Amino acid sequence: MAPSRPAFARWLGQTNDVTQIFLSAGQVPDLINMAGGLPDPSIWPVDDLAALAASAVRDHPTEALAYSPIDGLPALRDLLAARYATPGLTLTRDNVMITSGGMQALDLIGRVLLEEGGLIAAQAPTYLGALDAWRPHHPRFRPMRLEANDFDPAAAFAGAQFAYTVPNFSNPTGRLVGLAQRQALLAAAQATGVWLIEDDPYGTLYYDGAQLPRLLTLAGQAKPGPYDGPVVYLGTLSKEVAPGFRIGWVIAAPEMIAALTAAKQGSDMCTSGLNQRIALDAFASGLADRMLPGILDLYRSRRDALCAAMARDLAGLFDWDKPEGGMFVWATAKDPGMDTDALLKKTLAHGVCITPSSVFDPEGTHRRSIRINFTLNPPERLAEGVRRLARAAAAPA
Amino acid sequence: MAPSRPAFARWLGQTNDVTQIFLSAGQVPDLINMAGGLPDPSIWPVDDLAALAASAVRDHPTEALAYSPIDGLPALRDLLAARYATPGLTLTRDNVMITSGGMQALDLIGRVLLEEGGLIAAQAPTYLGALDAWRPHHPRFRPMRLEANDFDPAAAFAGAQFAYTVPNFSNPTGRLVGLAQRQALLAAAQATGVWLIEDDPYGTLYYDGAQLPRLLTLAGQAKPGPYDGPVVYLGTLSKEVAPGFRIGWVIAAPEMIAALTAAKQGSDMCTSGLNQRIALDAFASGLADRMLPGILDLYRSRRDALCAAMARDLAGLFDWDKPEGGMFVWATAKDPGMDTDALLKKTLAHGVCITPSSVFDPEGTHRRSIRINFTLNPPERLAEGVRRLARAAAAPA
Repeated sequence: MAPSRPAFARWLGQTNDVTQIFLSAGQVPDLINMAGGLPDPSIWPVDDLAALAASAVRDHPTEALAYSPIDGLPALRDLLAARYATPGLTLTRDNVMITSGGMQALDLIGRVLLEEGGLIAAQAPTYLGALDAWRPHHPRFRPMRLEANDFDPAAAFAGAQFAYTVPNFSNPTGRLVGLAQRQALLAAAQATGVWLIEDDPYGTLYYDGAQLPRLLTLAGQAKPGPYDGPVVYLGTLSKEVAPGFRIGWVIAAPEMIAALTAAKQGSDMCTSGLNQRIALDAFASGLADRMLPGILDLYRSRRDALCAAMARDLAGLFDWDKPEGGMFVWATAKDPGMDTDALLKKTLAHGVCITPSSVFDPEGTHRRSIRINFTLNPPERLAEGVRRLARAAAAPA
Repeated sequence: MAPSRPAFARWLGQTNDVTQIFLSAGQVPDLINMAGGLPDPSIWPVDDLAALAASAVRDHPTEALAYSPIDGLPALRDLLAARYATPGLTLTRDNVMITSGGMQALDLIGRVLLEEGGLIAAQAPTYLGALDAWRPHHPRFRPMRLEANDFDPAAAFAGAQFAYTVPNFSNPTGRLVGLAQRQALLAAAQATGVWLIEDDPYGTLYYDGAQLPRLLTLAGQAKPGPYDGPVVYLGTLSKEVAPGFRIGWVIAAPEMIAALTAAKQGSDMCTSGLNQRIALDAFASGLADRMLPGILDLYRSRRDALCAAMARDLAGLFDWDKPEGGMFVWATAKDPGMDTDALLKKTLAHGVCITPSSVFDPEGTHRRSIRINFTLNPPERLAEGVRRLARAAAAPA
């Protein structure tokens, strides 16, 4: 008999079975996928991006093909420092590092700030990718309900290694954190010393109103001179251009950039120089900015189509707010006994896929809500998906 | 007064100052860098690679620009399974995953196999990137001197979570692990159940003799049927094509691939689809195989040039073996009191940079050897670098 193999690390046993359910969804014919957070491929100017890829290699072969500096290409760091600077926020290259997608930034933050069982103050419900990134450290979570009338940020932050928020159109709820709440979060970070992670993948996806100031911007205004504040800002190219390049960035105090760089060295050494060069050229050439109006028009119309279909078919079952931006509608069942993990299995049998609330809860016990994506599918598919969802909800278990 | 910030994780305090010395090396004018493991940019067929990059986006926009499956593009996994299969080794897509460079594979292995303080049996001296990757878990190391007459693999493996070796031209020593040693390592893995990590970035860089069979190949031959053996093989595109794409791969038992995929989900979500598509096309078009003879001729001549220069200028100070492949010569001082950390500082003052042995030792106490790279510089620069190194070694501290 073969000897037994060494045990895998404990955290691998702590995932739920929703991932397995999603994987099996790939086998369902004509499935309408409203679960993911995927962009619509029609937004990509393919010929322009192909030309950028070719010129990145041909005109900058050493940057594109060699190892990059661990913290990123200096020219891209400079460009991002300039792009995020404001009259009150002074940024240099030392405030910026490049990551392999926004996800890697979450992972690196866990590595540099979490010992086994460390405490995180996290906006609840919480982005599942952040939960995935931090799970190997077996952290404790203190959920923050930013919208509650009695929410006290300083109390929430006490003893935490960091606080985590997605202020623009939170994943999963689509909720926008208002200006007064932003100021209160920043004041608590300054009072307690706790790092405040501003995860901002959807910061450009405002469909109705004007952009609110970033926590990063507010932190810069609070103190003159080169930025060294408590806000750690995370950005990504995935929503502004395309996820396939796996380019993200962190803007933070130099001591945090140095720590994250040390963690990145042992994580993937550096981010692809080719993809960094493409990101640099996509911003410098104005391509990213030219793409934005089309993206906003497309996604706004799809949000409206989804909400109209929901009003028609789901108003008796769920409550939701129409989001002012982002990629998702968050709907909570009127029936407090609803189990949306069970609902997911029924929806798959009806040819539609949504994300149940349990995956956004560190304890996995929140079972009453669902996250519905509106960016991937055209209006008629969204409407058909909602009809299927309503039929699934009405079907016996 | 501002409140103090939460402490960074302990492992960040455990790096030595050699990295800082290297960073300062960038300021030295006319420095001859013999420290890194960098390819010579002249090996890159820039126009061909630019064309591959453009066609990856233009002809496969969804693969290149969207999120990829966590474990990689199916077509690339299939190609690698076919490329590594032998008459005795049956591989399918389920045995293969794509990583963001070879470095990420080391990181993921640590995540899935190491709890705090876990035991690693590691070929000594040990690749510093592996030490970097595993440091956050505070592992214990049992050094393996594979070349020692009394080396007992089964005793070395006992109680370890995994064993680690670079059998082809080890980094840092350039040593080739012989066939009998490979068979002994595999037998110990099979007897103990311990995972055997075969890190093989230099497996194509044989300058003299014929390639020895991989541990993976030997493991496949040992048992018929789909591969599920103890060898976890790590490959990379960095030496065969270019490091800027950050493409690596793992070939292993399906249960290991599944665990590593779960770890990758929370690490960087997926590897760039663009770069995976380029890797696929570089292999499928034959470009990678066409590059190899030129790479071998160039690096063989540089190895010979370095060893000739060392024989001329360093024979009184160091002992070394001429490596049959890879990127490095490992030289050990005749003087047992030599401190190569101190030597590094002197070499920088003389305009040359090498890597001291301390960085390849988990304890940081091995101070008698140096690693010299021969792939980056042309013969006359290698000769000048060795002259500078000899002068630095003779200079007062």
